[in-house]
Amino acid sequence: MNPKTYSLAVHGGAGTISSSGEAAEAPYHAGLHDALLAGQAVLAAGGSALDAVIASVIELEDCPLFNAGHGAVFNADEEHELDAGVMDGRTQAAGAVAGMRTLRNPVSGAAAVLRDGRCVLLGVHGEAALARRHGLVQVETSYFSTPNRLAQLRMVQARAHADAVLDHDGPVGPRFGTVGAVARDRHGHLAAATSTGGMTNKMPGRVGDSPIVGAGVYADDASCAVSATGTGEHFIRACLAHDVHARMIYGGLDVALAASRALHESVGPLGGQGGLVAVGADGHIAMPYNTAGMYRGWVCEGDAACTAIFGEARRH
Amino acid sequence: MNPKTYSLAVHGGAGTISSSGEAAEAPYHAGLHDALLAGQAVLAAGGSALDAVIASVIELEDCPLFNAGHGAVFNADEEHELDAGVMDGRTQAAGAVAGMRTLRNPVSGAAAVLRDGRCVLLGVHGEAALARRHGLVQVETSYFSTPNRLAQLRMVQARAHADAVLDHDGPVGPRFGTVGAVARDRHGHLAAATSTGGMTNKMPGRVGDSPIVGAGVYADDASCAVSATGTGEHFIRACLAHDVHARMIYGGLDVALAASRALHESVGPLGGQGGLVAVGADGHIAMPYNTAGMYRGWVCEGDAACTAIFGEARRH
Repeated sequence: MNPKTYSLAVHGGAGTISSSGEAAEAPYHAGLHDALLAGQAVLAAGGSALDAVIASVIELEDCPLFNAGHGAVFNADEEHELDAGVMDGRTQAAGAVAGMRTLRNPVSGAAAVLRDGRCVLLGVHGEAALARRHGLVQVETSYFSTPNRLAQLRMVQARAHADAVLDHDGPVGPRFGTVGAVARDRHGHLAAATSTGGMTNKMPGRVGDSPIVGAGVYADDASCAVSATGTGEHFIRACLAHDVHARMIYGGLDVALAASRALHESVGPLGGQGGLVAVGADGHIAMPYNTAGMYRGWVCEGDAACTAIFGEARRH
Repeated sequence: MNPKTYSLAVHGGAGTISSSGEAAEAPYHAGLHDALLAGQAVLAAGGSALDAVIASVIELEDCPLFNAGHGAVFNADEEHELDAGVMDGRTQAAGAVAGMRTLRNPVSGAAAVLRDGRCVLLGVHGEAALARRHGLVQVETSYFSTPNRLAQLRMVQARAHADAVLDHDGPVGPRFGTVGAVARDRHGHLAAATSTGGMTNKMPGRVGDSPIVGAGVYADDASCAVSATGTGEHFIRACLAHDVHARMIYGGLDVALAASRALHESVGPLGGQGGLVAVGADGHIAMPYNTAGMYRGWVCEGDAACTAIFGEARRH
């Protein structure tokens, strides 16, 4: 692969998706394609991988179909708590926010934490000051809500009551709708970003893997950039994103094998389900998942952009 | 090393400590020794590594000399926000709490999250419900405060004003006073626990590496258990604790070399300062640091317990 070309991959979650027909799936393909176009515009202009992944994730956060930003799922208290993380492979600088309630675009909050530089992970008590200092747009919580997500909460809570257990596994569309992006820019730098509303009916205060460096997000120019989606707790315990890096650096694997083994040999044995997108320092993209499907898209400079949910790719 | 023997190591922080004479240092040695005795009592009775590290860390949280629980540092708003994490190497189950304000013993909160099993990392919005459900002791915030920590905050804030920067690096005693413990029990299982008040004058909402699985805490029976202390942001970006594991599993190193290289080759180049305690699956203990000193203690079954701040160990 030409070292001067860019690569970009995005995801919109993985899970027990069943095919709902081409017409119903078209908006998801369009949403993923829009996210690719946003990141690609940055990369094609010679911009940084960091700016590209942020641009792609903002697009996915703004799309109500995906579980991040507008369209985020509800927690057990019928509220939204949003997590996001971003990492720059050039410097290994990182920024992340957990449990946000008012930031319109949580990934912009994560990017502000990265630029700010005073900390890496900021909890909800820092939200107002962060927004003020960095001029981030804040919204009423109703901005994040959609009728579809409320229906999902009601269904999961009804089931949970019936089963007398808290059940996060309702058959209510994509189970793990986290969004994310990874990129390599023309300068050879890598970056990753991940954003999520978490899991429907989650315990208030629960933080998933998305804002955890080394779990749901990681980037190092020496190896790869990774964004994950799945049963967050398993991804945290397996340190999934750093595990991909470690299998490349210490184990000598390429990005495809490292990504696949990290998912199947580190996350899988814990019972974890989901997937990830990764880009290697050489620009190669890997997108393994151990669920029925994963909303994903990718583009390498000079090729057509593609999106997919199951096995077959749609060229744009 | 006999596979049926236990090992235990604890730390009470690392940093730009300068020797203050034997009399002034005696209480720190005594505090570390008490923490060893608490964990050792569990291990000698055939108890689990998990229970042992929790017992040791509770002892350190209760001691006002160390920056965790009673004696925790203040954030920039003159409040306390407490983080803790715990991991069981037997199952790779983990629990952690971030930004706690009322839990008397944050490590007990982390252990409750682990037992609860619904999530791994719980933020402050889950604190009250967690305490209620698991019968955890809650206290007024004044319980955590000590005159010494308030004086440190005043000194750092005065310097920060003078320098027109937020400066976490005041020469005010141990800079990174996180506490932690790692153990191997007689059954060959490993565990790690870490707890902290964070950094003096920290940005409200800032979460450090202590409650981050793979950064400040990690345990896997296949490799090692790790508890870290230092400039948390660098430890998060380097995924320090998982990096020790990865260098053993994928790189074939023993725990001593893996721990040393993780600190010096992964954290060091980012500018990170601090140290860690680690115990390998074979029971060997490693305690590297790249600062002037690290408050630490260790005991292996059949040997005397030792504590140290600088190079020389004190036998108990």
